[in-house]
Amino acid sequence: MSITVRELADKLGLSFEGDGSIEVTGVSSLDKAVRGELVFFVQAKLRPLLEGTKATAGILPAGESLDRIPLKAVLRAENPHLAFIRAISLIIPEQLQAPGVHPSAFVSPSARLSEGVSIGAMCSVGDNVEIGARTVVHPLVSIYDGVRVGADCRIHSHVSLREGVRLGDRVILHNGVQIGGDGFGYLKSPDGTHIKIPQVGTVVIEDDVEIGANSAVDRAALGTTIVRRGTKIDNLVTVAHNVDVGENAILVAQVGIGGSSKIGRGAILSGQVGVPDHIDIGDGAIIAAKSGITKNVPAGEVVSGSPHLSIRDWRKFWAVAPELYGLLKEFKKLKARVEELEAERRKKS
Amino acid sequence: MSITVRELADKLGLSFEGDGSIEVTGVSSLDKAVRGELVFFVQAKLRPLLEGTKATAGILPAGESLDRIPLKAVLRAENPHLAFIRAISLIIPEQLQAPGVHPSAFVSPSARLSEGVSIGAMCSVGDNVEIGARTVVHPLVSIYDGVRVGADCRIHSHVSLREGVRLGDRVILHNGVQIGGDGFGYLKSPDGTHIKIPQVGTVVIEDDVEIGANSAVDRAALGTTIVRRGTKIDNLVTVAHNVDVGENAILVAQVGIGGSSKIGRGAILSGQVGVPDHIDIGDGAIIAAKSGITKNVPAGEVVSGSPHLSIRDWRKFWAVAPELYGLLKEFKKLKARVEELEAERRKKS
Amino acid sequence: MSITVRELADKLGLSFEGDGSIEVTGVSSLDKAVRGELVFFVQAKLRPLLEGTKATAGILPAGESLDRIPLKAVLRAENPHLAFIRAISLIIPEQLQAPGVHPSAFVSPSARLSEGVSIGAMCSVGDNVEIGARTVVHPLVSIYDGVRVGADCRIHSHVSLREGVRLGDRVILHNGVQIGGDGFGYLKSPDGTHIKIPQVGTVVIEDDVEIGANSAVDRAALGTTIVRRGTKIDNLVTVAHNVDVGENAILVAQVGIGGSSKIGRGAILSGQVGVPDHIDIGDGAIIAAKSGITKNVPAGEVVSGSPHLSIRDWRKFWAVAPELYGLLKEFKKLKARVEELEAERRKKS
Repeated sequence: MSITVRELADKLGLSFEGDGSIEVTGVSSLDKAVRGELVFFVQAKLRPLLEGTKATAGILPAGESLDRIPLKAVLRAENPHLAFIRAISLIIPEQLQAPGVHPSAFVSPSARLSEGVSIGAMCSVGDNVEIGARTVVHPLVSIYDGVRVGADCRIHSHVSLREGVRLGDRVILHNGVQIGGDGFGYLKSPDGTHIKIPQVGTVVIEDDVEIGANSAVDRAALGTTIVRRGTKIDNLVTVAHNVDVGENAILVAQVGIGGSSKIGRGAILSGQVGVPDHIDIGDGAIIAAKSGITKNVPAGEVVSGSPHLSIRDWRKFWAVAPELYGLLKEFKKLKARVEELEAERRKKS
Repeated sequence: MSITVRELADKLGLSFEGDGSIEVTGVSSLDKAVRGELVFFVQAKLRPLLEGTKATAGILPAGESLDRIPLKAVLRAENPHLAFIRAISLIIPEQLQAPGVHPSAFVSPSARLSEGVSIGAMCSVGDNVEIGARTVVHPLVSIYDGVRVGADCRIHSHVSLREGVRLGDRVILHNGVQIGGDGFGYLKSPDGTHIKIPQVGTVVIEDDVEIGANSAVDRAALGTTIVRRGTKIDNLVTVAHNVDVGENAILVAQVGIGGSSKIGRGAILSGQVGVPDHIDIGDGAIIAAKSGITKNVPAGEVVSGSPHLSIRDWRKFWAVAPELYGLLKEFKKLKARVEELEAERRKKS
Repeated sequence: MSITVRELADKLGLSFEGDGSIEVTGVSSLDKAVRGELVFFVQAKLRPLLEGTKATAGILPAGESLDRIPLKAVLRAENPHLAFIRAISLIIPEQLQAPGVHPSAFVSPSARLSEGVSIGAMCSVGDNVEIGARTVVHPLVSIYDGVRVGADCRIHSHVSLREGVRLGDRVILHNGVQIGGDGFGYLKSPDGTHIKIPQVGTVVIEDDVEIGANSAVDRAALGTTIVRRGTKIDNLVTVAHNVDVGENAILVAQVGIGGSSKIGRGAILSGQVGVPDHIDIGDGAIIAAKSGITKNVPAGEVVSGSPHLSIRDWRKFWAVAPELYGLLKEFKKLKARVEELEAERRKKS
């Protein structure tokens, strides 16, 4: 698509300088942009890239000097990155799968699809499923009986929504996300076999949650596994039964959360973090990548390591770790010297 | 569904006290139960929750006092948790997909389906596949040529069973499980490229194995990758080519097992554990979460860490780790003091 | 299939000794082979297995003595493993899905399929997709609009190729691989919510790349996520937006690579390695299993640990780690002894 700088400025409520009739046809970064593209600029240290950019238009902070800047038009924004994000949706509008049910899909007669719903090729939609307005279900999605999906969701290929799970509005599930598989619960028999504990709870994914490719959220044993409003989950994350993930949390790729744990509002779990069963991560806590949590983390704490330490202790420990090999050797030498002093003292006394 | 306490007691072979005609319509935990629900009680420390529960009926150990307990009926069991598990299946019976082949599924004419098999919408079942009695294949499952599946299995959406793999009876594969992809094997050329070693072995998943969402078990290069009877595997686990997982093992979420390794009977690998190629984990060994195994683990050992240590050494190490930064500083000071003593001695002598 | 030793020798350009008319019907390893099978031998320490093998034929290095070797025929090769790999393809030829579009598949009228393409049951192929000659798409694959796939690829069940992604020739994607899901990018609002940054870039997978089951490669925010020629990726790996993986790299199972990082040509990332955002791993670098990279790794370096150390420092550190608990105790004792010496000195002076 293309849009003029003037139209962009109008729609985004921004002022502009330069040629408002110029057309913008794409978006890019300062260093990779080609003619016709829009860029944004916020980091002062990237100013040389801005001065060398081949982009046609840019979104700059108010007050940023235009000296040596080759852009044909400049939009001014308080938050250029945010304005750029909004501009992307105008310049490259989302290509939506057409509303309606693809002829190859199977939709149970008892399913209720609201207006504007799109069901892609080869989907299976079970009995008594409800899907909210304008939700797009891409090809090859499996929706089991009794699932409820809100409005304006995007459900990508190879997602499963198991029996009875519920999604809020504007939920985005990327390819291969599996919601509502059985939690991992067994009772050990005296003969060493594991008796399955039926997992008869469900999963609720609230509004505005996004989940990355091939992640999985298990149904509760009893009750509900819940991912609260606004939380964003990356690829290959697993959330076990009865977990409660607070609002606006961030779970980076390959995080694993054990059964019945609770992740606080706005907490950030970096990549490959592991949280065992029955742990509380407080609101706003930050867990560094690869940490293995071993006890509750209070709200606002920053921790790292496995077992985890406060970020300060972790940094101090690893600052000295490479010296410990030498320390051990030096210690033995020092001990010998002390022993020599002691021997001498004994001799004298 | 609903069932009376008397019926429950009859079917479970338990005695009961209180009103046997009362109906139970669901199951829950002590603190979350509502009227009509059944709970169980085993942990003495949860007695206050039992006394405050809103449940209608409960399964209690023989001899547990009924003082201040608001339940309308009490069943008595030697193992209340096990009795509760059995009760769940009576109160909330599994909702089975109807037997037969969904009209949208493709089943090769050479496939042999036993009585009571259910094939869901949009499945693909290849040539010469055999599926045992009453096995349920949910929608959107891909079964390649020559696969053999036992009786009473549950195969969930987005599972692949690659050419020739074999499943025993009562195997449960959750959504997105991929069985029989090629093992990861290459021969390095002098020019730096990697020549693929054809993976012409297969995979056997024995009876009563359950595998969680989006896990993967690779086919052997030559021979067989095997997951033995009764083993339970959580979400996002990967089992490489030629691995042999013993009976009744537990592989918690995000475990990764390298090629040709052997996991002993009843071993427990906690979340995110990594086992490299050609390692033996002994029977009954326990590997703590996030461990990175670096050599064989004898039967019955408990290990932790990466590289792994005995759990005792690991605990001792991490008990002192936060003090090592201080130790290094103190060591330098002590060394200076020893040097001073030495200097003095030299002066005197 | 079966093939005579003479035919094998002809097709592989090898000499042979023994009965050239003997038939080979399978391949195996020295210890597991049965009659009719071909084995290979390279490791001197396995000579006892060779002497005890039940195989019918073997590929041996030139010059290897035939004393006490029970094989009926022996092929001689400079690189027996490589010759064996080639022999496998002759003895057990790949079973290819028949060319053509399965009647149950949906292929958009605007898609262009080259000669010999095979589209399996229940696939969905979107608008303007192009698929190169002889590429095999197994059942239940979802190819979104505008995707381009090269020739001779193998795309397995439950793969997604999202809008506009491009694959080179001879690419192998195992089951459940998801290419082109949105990168994980958000802008944090002052109210704590996360504003999605539209991911409008794409993914390029070059020639001869192979990707294991349930791995995921995200599309770029702007520009391209690229996996270069000849790279091999194992199961359950995640590659984030704007990553550039160099030629002939190896990413072992459960590796995670953060946004905009660059993996050098021929680099090896062992299992469960984590690489955060904006990191450069140099050409030929080797990252030991479970490492958590914390800064750039120069070309050719070997590192281990989390945070990573040079492999030498890492080994030294872990060699002494189990002694540190004792060291701390000993240090306290030594300090007391030094204090005693000092006290005595003060007394004397």
